[in-house]
Amino acid sequence: MRILSGIQPSGSLHLGNYFGMMKKMIAYQENEDLFCFIANYHAMTSVTDGNALARGTLEAAANFLALGMDPERSTFWVQSDVPEVQELTWALSNFTPMGLLERCHSYKDKVAKGIAANHGLFAYPVLMTADILLFQSDRVPVGKDQKQHVEVARDIALKFNNQYGEIFTVPEAEIDDEVATVPGTDGQKMSKSYGNTIDLFLEEKALRKQIMRIVTDSTPVEAPKDPDRCNVFQIYRLFLDKQQQQALRKRYEAGGMGYGEVKQELFETVRDFFTPFAERRRELLADLDGLRATLARGADKARQAGAKTLRKVRKKTGLAY
Amino acid sequence: MRILSGIQPSGSLHLGNYFGMMKKMIAYQENEDLFCFIANYHAMTSVTDGNALARGTLEAAANFLALGMDPERSTFWVQSDVPEVQELTWALSNFTPMGLLERCHSYKDKVAKGIAANHGLFAYPVLMTADILLFQSDRVPVGKDQKQHVEVARDIALKFNNQYGEIFTVPEAEIDDEVATVPGTDGQKMSKSYGNTIDLFLEEKALRKQIMRIVTDSTPVEAPKDPDRCNVFQIYRLFLDKQQQQALRKRYEAGGMGYGEVKQELFETVRDFFTPFAERRRELLADLDGLRATLARGADKARQAGAKTLRKVRKKTGLAY
Repeated sequence: MRILSGIQPSGSLHLGNYFGMMKKMIAYQENEDLFCFIANYHAMTSVTDGNALARGTLEAAANFLALGMDPERSTFWVQSDVPEVQELTWALSNFTPMGLLERCHSYKDKVAKGIAANHGLFAYPVLMTADILLFQSDRVPVGKDQKQHVEVARDIALKFNNQYGEIFTVPEAEIDDEVATVPGTDGQKMSKSYGNTIDLFLEEKALRKQIMRIVTDSTPVEAPKDPDRCNVFQIYRLFLDKQQQQALRKRYEAGGMGYGEVKQELFETVRDFFTPFAERRRELLADLDGLRATLARGADKARQAGAKTLRKVRKKTGLAY
Repeated sequence: MRILSGIQPSGSLHLGNYFGMMKKMIAYQENEDLFCFIANYHAMTSVTDGNALARGTLEAAANFLALGMDPERSTFWVQSDVPEVQELTWALSNFTPMGLLERCHSYKDKVAKGIAANHGLFAYPVLMTADILLFQSDRVPVGKDQKQHVEVARDIALKFNNQYGEIFTVPEAEIDDEVATVPGTDGQKMSKSYGNTIDLFLEEKALRKQIMRIVTDSTPVEAPKDPDRCNVFQIYRLFLDKQQQQALRKRYEAGGMGYGEVKQELFETVRDFFTPFAERRRELLADLDGLRATLARGADKARQAGAKTLRKVRKKTGLAY
C-alpha cells in the first residue's frame, strides 16, 4: 500500500510532533511503501523569509533521517525538487469547482484568524491534491483538520478520471483517532503556539529547564498521588511499556515520591532516548552536501514514480502534442 | 525591448485574426526581442478534448511559422514545453491577494456566460503573470479585454519585488487602439462565434463561397456605389496600399462595377496572398517531427531565458536549500 505524507519544514520539533506523527510515520516503512516529503511549497503560504525556509527544510530533513527515516526503503524528498507537481496542479485546477475550494474550512479559518487571504492559501488544497495523485497514493494519514482536503483530492480525482479515463488512484484518508494528544507542560495540548513544549534535540540544560516547568499540583512528597491527573506521568508514559507504566503508577499511589524526583527521571529518560538521534542529526547537519545528495536521490525516486502519471496526464489532456 | 505574446492554440484562422493580431505580432520581430508562445496551458480552461488540444497546438504553430514567425530571430515555443512557468505560478500565488483575482472582469464575465467556475479559470491571471514575469517581459500587447490582467501582473511583480528585491521587470501593457476591427461577411466584427469569417488556408472553392457570401446592398451594376458603406471594400482594403485603395474607390464611385465582379477580384487577391503561406503550412504539417523539433529548439531558448529568473526566485524564496 502506498502511503503519502507531507510535512511542513520546521527545524524545531517537540514531543507532540514526535509521538503524535513522526514515530508513526517512520513506522510505516516497515510494512508499507512510504512516500514522505518536506512540504516546502506549502510552507510558502506562511513563510516569506527565504533563509528561514531553506534552513527549515534542511533541518526537517535531518530530523526525519535522524529519527529513522530510511531513504533506501522509503521515498523521501523535498517537494520543490519535483516541480512536476505544479504542472499537475494546473491540470487539476481545471477540474476543481470553485465551490469546492470555497467550502474548505482550513482556508476560512486561517483568513478568520487574520492571515492574509492570498491565492496560495486558497489554492493549497489543489496542490495537496496534486501531491497525492501524482504518486498514485492509496492512503493519506492526516489529522482531522486535513480530512476535508483529502475529500477534495478524491473529488478532483473522480472528475478527472471521469473525463480522461482511469488515470488516478482515488486516495483514502487515514484518520487515526487513537493517537493520544500529547499534553504540554501546562496540561493543554503540546503546541508551539502555547509555549508549552518539550523540544527534541535540546542541550541538556535547556531540556531540563523545560521539563522542570511541567505544572504539578501541591500534593506533598509523602502523600499518595494520582498519576492520571499528573502531567508528568502523562508525558512519561509515552516512553514506557505497559509494565513500566504500571510500576510507575504504583510509585505514584504509594506516596513518598516527590514531583521533583519523577521530573528528574523523566528528564534523564527523554535525554537518553533522544541522545543517539541528536548525535545522528548533528552529523547530518555537519555535512550539508551529503544531506543534499541524499535528498537528491530521494527526489530522483519520487520523480520516476511521478513521471508515469504525468506522462499519462500530458497525453490524455493533449499537452503532449 | 522584450515583447511577450501568448496565443491560444486554434487550428483555424480567419482574416480578423491575421490583420487584427498575427500580422502585427510577426512584424515585431523586425525590431524587437519577440517572445511568442502557444498558450496550451491556458487553453485547458476551455478545451477538455485532448486530441483537439494536441492538434490545435500543432496547427497553431504551423500557422505562425507559415505566416512568417522566424524561430531563429524570435523565441517561439509551446507553453507546456517550459513547465517551469507553473512553479513560478505557485511562488506568485503567495503574493496574489484573493481580491485582485476576484475583481477580474474576464473571470466574472465567463462565469456569467455560463462557463463552469473552475479554479483554472479563476487562477488564469496568475499563470498569465508567471508567463510575463518568467521572461522579464517589458511589454505585453493585449486587447482591451486583457488589459486588467497585465495590471494584475504589475501588482504581483511589485509585491514580490518588494519582499525579495528587484527580481522581476514590471511589465507594461501595450494597447493598440489603431488596430482596425476587421468586418465579417455580415458587417459585424469578424468572429468565429458569429459565423461570418473568411478563413485562411481554405481550399479555393470553400474560400470563394465565403467571399461570395459577403452581404452587399441592392445597388444595380451601373449605379455609383459608396465604398465606405460596402463590406467588400472594407475587407479588400486590408490587402491594398493607399494608391490601390484610391483606385478601387474611384471604380466604386464611377458606377458600372457590380459587387460580383469586385468579390471575384477579392477572392483572387485573398487566394493569391495566402497561397504561398498555405503551401508552407502544408509542408510544415506534413513533417510533424520536424515541426516538433523546431518547437523543441524554441522551448530550449525560452527555458534558458526563464532559468535565470527562476534561479533567483528559488534562491530568494528559500526553495533552493
